[in-house]
Amino acid sequence: MIDTVGPCEIAASVIVGERVKIWQFATICDGAVIGDDVMVGSGAWIGKNVIVGVCTRIQHGAFIPNGTVIGRGVFIGPNVTMTDDKYPKAGMPYRAAPPILEDDCSIGAGAILLPGVQIGRGAMIGAGAVVTESVPAGATYVGCPAKRV
Amino acid sequence: MIDTVGPCEIAASVIVGERVKIWQFATICDGAVIGDDVMVGSGAWIGKNVIVGVCTRIQHGAFIPNGTVIGRGVFIGPNVTMTDDKYPKAGMPYRAAPPILEDDCSIGAGAILLPGVQIGRGAMIGAGAVVTESVPAGATYVGCPAKRV
Amino acid sequence: MIDTVGPCEIAASVIVGERVKIWQFATICDGAVIGDDVMVGSGAWIGKNVIVGVCTRIQHGAFIPNGTVIGRGVFIGPNVTMTDDKYPKAGMPYRAAPPILEDDCSIGAGAILLPGVQIGRGAMIGAGAVVTESVPAGATYVGCPAKRV
Repeated sequence: MIDTVGPCEIAASVIVGERVKIWQFATICDGAVIGDDVMVGSGAWIGKNVIVGVCTRIQHGAFIPNGTVIGRGVFIGPNVTMTDDKYPKAGMPYRAAPPILEDDCSIGAGAILLPGVQIGRGAMIGAGAVVTESVPAGATYVGCPAKRV
Repeated sequence: MIDTVGPCEIAASVIVGERVKIWQFATICDGAVIGDDVMVGSGAWIGKNVIVGVCTRIQHGAFIPNGTVIGRGVFIGPNVTMTDDKYPKAGMPYRAAPPILEDDCSIGAGAILLPGVQIGRGAMIGAGAVVTESVPAGATYVGCPAKRV
Repeated sequence: MIDTVGPCEIAASVIVGERVKIWQFATICDGAVIGDDVMVGSGAWIGKNVIVGVCTRIQHGAFIPNGTVIGRGVFIGPNVTMTDDKYPKAGMPYRAAPPILEDDCSIGAGAILLPGVQIGRGAMIGAGAVVTESVPAGATYVGCPAKRV
């Protein structure tokens, strides 16, 4: 069952698990697959064909580009921004490189993920970090550009 | 009187002062107390039991976690993100440590406040700063991590 | 023709070109002028009297202050935040200094533009950059504060 709180936009083709909660002003685009017990915060954007594993929490205002794969038990903080285009130019075609987030990782508030980065299992990304390279399992990265601590 | 501009979500238990203006797509959660002459921008999120002093302005997209205490005459810029959990993990209980913002301080656009920081009276936080420690009254902090200037 | 996707707020005085697409929960304020083939993403905010050139793309959650001038073919990434007040204080009058974005420049996801900066033609601003000075045409700036690379 999907539990929505106020107006939001969920495309008809979205597949949603059990006990999912979607807050107001969120958007979930065509083809997304949302696992059981997921929470999507207010004003968040889930792009096309995004896969979100069970028990993941996506907070207010987060932006998840098309095709991103997110594991189970992932925390995505408020106003986190993920990207899929290394050299964006308006109107130019590009080969999308969305990030990959493995199970149980956490992305701190306001962090930014550059295209194609992979966040390893259980890794922790600090609030406000700008992640320019893949992060190994269990590692903690903070800063701009993000470095291991 | 509350003046709303377009659709927004204001919980029934919210206490709102005089001449408050709430812009569209904003959310104010249960138990929040909003002083006179406050402005809440579009798409902003005010968590549960947040206290907002008179004449404070909260801009577009800002995220204020549950229990944050905000003084009078505070400026919170667009897309500012505040946090209350130092080691966020999806689904884990935690002891919330929201920030405290004293009167007349200003938080620049897109700045991020780490859990539990206290922003002193009249302090100024630069746009994009990542604030990892409490800021004394009257001080100016900028950068990532934010340092006094 | 304007093509809106879900609820959004477009002031009656806004002038909109052909084939413009406005996504849900976006706001366009009084006096804005939006060129042909522009896309405005979900939850974005376009302030009063902003001018947006043809073929420009403004992504999810971006904040564009009053009076900003944006050229043709500009890319503005998700959660980009622009500013117009160098020393913001709640309720204080100020002389607004919005940024100027020349044709074909790109502003990466989550970047922040300080007041009054001018982004030159074709310049590229990295994701998460905090831009504190004007950027020459064709240059690439990254980091906090943003530096040329």
